[in-house]
Amino acid sequence: MTFFAELERRSREVDSLVCVGLDPDYKKTPVDQIAAFNKAIIAATAPYAACYKPNIAFYEQHGLPGLRALEETLAAIPADIPVIGDVKRGDMGNTAEAYARAMFEQWKFGAVTVNGYQGLDAVAPFLAYQDHAVYVLCRTSNPSSREFQERRLENGKMLYQEMALTATGWSANVGLVVGATAPSELRDVRSLVPAAPLLVPGVGTQGGKPDDVVLNAGYDYGKLVVNASRSIIYASTGADFAEAAGKAARDLRDELRAAAAARA
Amino acid sequence: MTFFAELERRSREVDSLVCVGLDPDYKKTPVDQIAAFNKAIIAATAPYAACYKPNIAFYEQHGLPGLRALEETLAAIPADIPVIGDVKRGDMGNTAEAYARAMFEQWKFGAVTVNGYQGLDAVAPFLAYQDHAVYVLCRTSNPSSREFQERRLENGKMLYQEMALTATGWSANVGLVVGATAPSELRDVRSLVPAAPLLVPGVGTQGGKPDDVVLNAGYDYGKLVVNASRSIIYASTGADFAEAAGKAARDLRDELRAAAAARA
Repeated sequence: MTFFAELERRSREVDSLVCVGLDPDYKKTPVDQIAAFNKAIIAATAPYAACYKPNIAFYEQHGLPGLRALEETLAAIPADIPVIGDVKRGDMGNTAEAYARAMFEQWKFGAVTVNGYQGLDAVAPFLAYQDHAVYVLCRTSNPSSREFQERRLENGKMLYQEMALTATGWSANVGLVVGATAPSELRDVRSLVPAAPLLVPGVGTQGGKPDDVVLNAGYDYGKLVVNASRSIIYASTGADFAEAAGKAARDLRDELRAAAAARA
Repeated sequence: MTFFAELERRSREVDSLVCVGLDPDYKKTPVDQIAAFNKAIIAATAPYAACYKPNIAFYEQHGLPGLRALEETLAAIPADIPVIGDVKRGDMGNTAEAYARAMFEQWKFGAVTVNGYQGLDAVAPFLAYQDHAVYVLCRTSNPSSREFQERRLENGKMLYQEMALTATGWSANVGLVVGATAPSELRDVRSLVPAAPLLVPGVGTQGGKPDDVVLNAGYDYGKLVVNASRSIIYASTGADFAEAAGKAARDLRDELRAAAAARA
């Protein structure tokens, strides 16, 4: 089954669009505690999770011990919950092939985020794995995303619009990353590419509103996942951190559901 | 001393613009042989190397054993030769900070390649390390680099030109990646940003010509390094591989020198 079909199945099963970002902060979670911390978070949030998304930067920052903690983390995710590796890789030819091997064969991520600046041949080696998928960076959630992504091209389109149209034309296994912090651009992308699976980060700590996301991007299993990281995993820094994370994931699931009900 | 000052010092010392790409092919060099292979390559090429550039994808593809081989490789590079980590990372805010820690504190690369699609806040955390530097992807050497990088903006510039101008404005510690496979774009970037340090991949196996590079980008210590990977490290696949790599690095150094002499 393709990644997006798996994601749709899981999302429908738990009626949830919640993607739980497993991004351990080095100031809050020392490297030797990451695996245990993540295992507790996973156990508490699994009932509400459409998928998990570790951002590999938070493991790489600790060197090899961090990557060993990622290995343990991935082993703790139930097999029926899809995993997106947020790795934002992008390179060419034989190098892109090496990254695809790293992400799909070594780490065994179901999907990964990639950067499309180098064009199709930076992404094609990932697409050669037909049961896997990529989310191409389109309109990211950071403040300076406008600097290049909203540059207008000679054809009248902005760069993120061109990226959305071009990248989703490469394969049905291409989705897009569009930040919740840019509600009107999210609406725009959804209308440009109505069938594209979207990964939407930026709710919670970054300030995006869950109901805005559903209003602008719909509520379709497999076609939308909404990621929150810090606002779930650090909902409490006390002994009740796992319980608080479970509650935060459930609350986000419920907010998204309520927005869908209000919209219908 | 800043990275670019170190690079200038080393480059002048050995009168070489050669960057040796340490990119072990998984079909030719099994993971348990990478460290020994690289050590032999480094010993043979060091007299001619302005710098080394391992592309981390070729290590990541082997999982943790591959990254341990990278660790051993880096330890074998003489301390007075600068090292560029070709990692092409690009992410935002606290994630970019985590990548910068990974690359500069864990791996201790002098400089890294980064992707500027997300704008300044994806790069700023790297620039906070003032003795280090970044090379921002500008016009890459792959066939589909044109797909986005040569899109013309409303202001008349192509995206790679806008990237060159904008990124070099962020800091004096920003250089650019421009492929040798695009000689006229290389010439164009050199004239747009005459002082910018350039990292030029794509000679050798990819077909870029060393004399074209010097013709179009000049011959200035610290302001230009020309990378070759496969054509050096796999110059021979026999028992003489290290000797052949040394010879290939020396030949490339000499070709670049000769082109500079012809141009003067």
